[in-house]
Amino acid sequence: MRMITLSEAATLLTENDNYHILTHRYPDGDTLGCAFALCYALRTLGKNANVILDSKLPSKFTYLAENYCDQDFVCDFVVSVDVAAPQLLGSLQEYYADKINLCIDHHASNSMVADNLCVDATCAAACEIIHVLIKAMDVEITKDIANAIYTGVSTDTGCFCYTNTTAQSHHIAAELIDLGCDIEKINRINFETKTRAKLKMERMVYDTMEFYCGGKCAIIYTTIAMQKALGAGDDEMEGLASIPRQVEGVKIGITMREKEDGTFKVSVRTNDGVDASKFCARFGGGGHVAASGCSIKGDLQSAKYMLIKAAEEVL
Amino acid sequence: MRMITLSEAATLLTENDNYHILTHRYPDGDTLGCAFALCYALRTLGKNANVILDSKLPSKFTYLAENYCDQDFVCDFVVSVDVAAPQLLGSLQEYYADKINLCIDHHASNSMVADNLCVDATCAAACEIIHVLIKAMDVEITKDIANAIYTGVSTDTGCFCYTNTTAQSHHIAAELIDLGCDIEKINRINFETKTRAKLKMERMVYDTMEFYCGGKCAIIYTTIAMQKALGAGDDEMEGLASIPRQVEGVKIGITMREKEDGTFKVSVRTNDGVDASKFCARFGGGGHVAASGCSIKGDLQSAKYMLIKAAEEVL
Repeated sequence: MRMITLSEAATLLTENDNYHILTHRYPDGDTLGCAFALCYALRTLGKNANVILDSKLPSKFTYLAENYCDQDFVCDFVVSVDVAAPQLLGSLQEYYADKINLCIDHHASNSMVADNLCVDATCAAACEIIHVLIKAMDVEITKDIANAIYTGVSTDTGCFCYTNTTAQSHHIAAELIDLGCDIEKINRINFETKTRAKLKMERMVYDTMEFYCGGKCAIIYTTIAMQKALGAGDDEMEGLASIPRQVEGVKIGITMREKEDGTFKVSVRTNDGVDASKFCARFGGGGHVAASGCSIKGDLQSAKYMLIKAAEEVL
Repeated sequence: MRMITLSEAATLLTENDNYHILTHRYPDGDTLGCAFALCYALRTLGKNANVILDSKLPSKFTYLAENYCDQDFVCDFVVSVDVAAPQLLGSLQEYYADKINLCIDHHASNSMVADNLCVDATCAAACEIIHVLIKAMDVEITKDIANAIYTGVSTDTGCFCYTNTTAQSHHIAAELIDLGCDIEKINRINFETKTRAKLKMERMVYDTMEFYCGGKCAIIYTTIAMQKALGAGDDEMEGLASIPRQVEGVKIGITMREKEDGTFKVSVRTNDGVDASKFCARFGGGGHVAASGCSIKGDLQSAKYMLIKAAEEVL
């Protein structure tokens, strides 16, 4: 296992021929943007390359795969993109965990096991690394690649709103727009469209909001029963995590989502430098300073109690 | 009245000595960003300059005026910024309407009367024009100026999300971040903070949502009674206009807000190229293709009826 530079990573991506690109479970715009951008770039170079998903491509992101079909080949090089820890590979972990040749990531908390690690935690999105890599691979950025990279940069920065946004994020966006990136479609899909079911889910979630620690901690939750009552799928659940942190005075915003396996998927968003990554590490999770996640086993009340207890200790 | 270039406008802004800078009523981030950026730039050149408001500076924007005090002087040059039509000057119209020496704006529908017009409708924000102007005036962009310009560009593009966002918008943002612009504070204030009263207002507004034209038109409203019940001020009312357009399938999203003078302030947001500016022109208003406004006299039901009728004709 060795840390490598971007240009060493670019070399690895031109020296081999048959690539599998692994994404993280519950795939988001950044891991998918990385995977499709890199896949299109490798194919431009005449390589075989497939994007490997833990589960179905979320319907909102089908635009990334408009010009994509799985290829038939024997893999000789495995790359993971935007995957911070082995368990985040989900169902891919069992087969791939000890076969990763190159890990490309932007999480400071990265704990992946791979032959080569290319991690830059100064990047707001892993797609910012992919952007530099593709240029270093001497591949022209096509419209498909531009759309994929923009998807990662824009979704991981909350459309250039979160504190992780840098001048580099904006420079890349400007370049991609000049290259024909379809920001109108992408922004509309990712930031400006709510199904009626999602609207109803938001209303229902507002009703669950509780405040602790003198208003500095806000918690919301969703249950399987709520999802069923509204016919809400995974798409309807996205973005809920940003709601509790937005309330004036809140430093830790917690969103709990009941899963079928008896756990709660917990998303933590913080303000004022409170470390969400450290908070989630208490429960075996991780992520970024202002946005992290973890899983907690148990019923709603006991899981909530543990989270409130942890918030009280942190604040 | 003559159309002038940016460099001619820059000359006018260096040739005179005592400037009043007029903003539009219900001042938003763009008109205020323009005014404070230009004011700080003029003062750097040793000029006298004041920002003139129709009403009190909205509390969320006080950060723009942290290093601002009104000066005492006799004005000899009047500039309007981001004001598309004389009536949008509000209470300033009576005194200033026939005294405007330079109008700087980015609305294609601009109908101002002024000695000199500098209008560039390709700019997402009037602050993008101000950015070029200040450079042409050879003034260094200080942190205060950067914060003001960023405020205009980010608020008028919905934090780089709306369809009006261009590569230029991103280039300017990148430059301002490099110049020390405080995007963390500004984005948090403008995009990431909701008072509890605002949260309650959103919930109440969701309950008023009605769909027409087979789901292509969505309408929400607020009344003075609703505002009073929640103790919601002007700050709580901001951003509501983006709610109805976000619903899947909606092409015209209409937000009606009852005002004390017996009118409804109407905000129209559109998708798929439906012209919001033309829609609002039917009621004496105007704005941009995807975001416009107008005022309608009458009670809730009759005003709503007129708007639905117009939507049916347009769709």
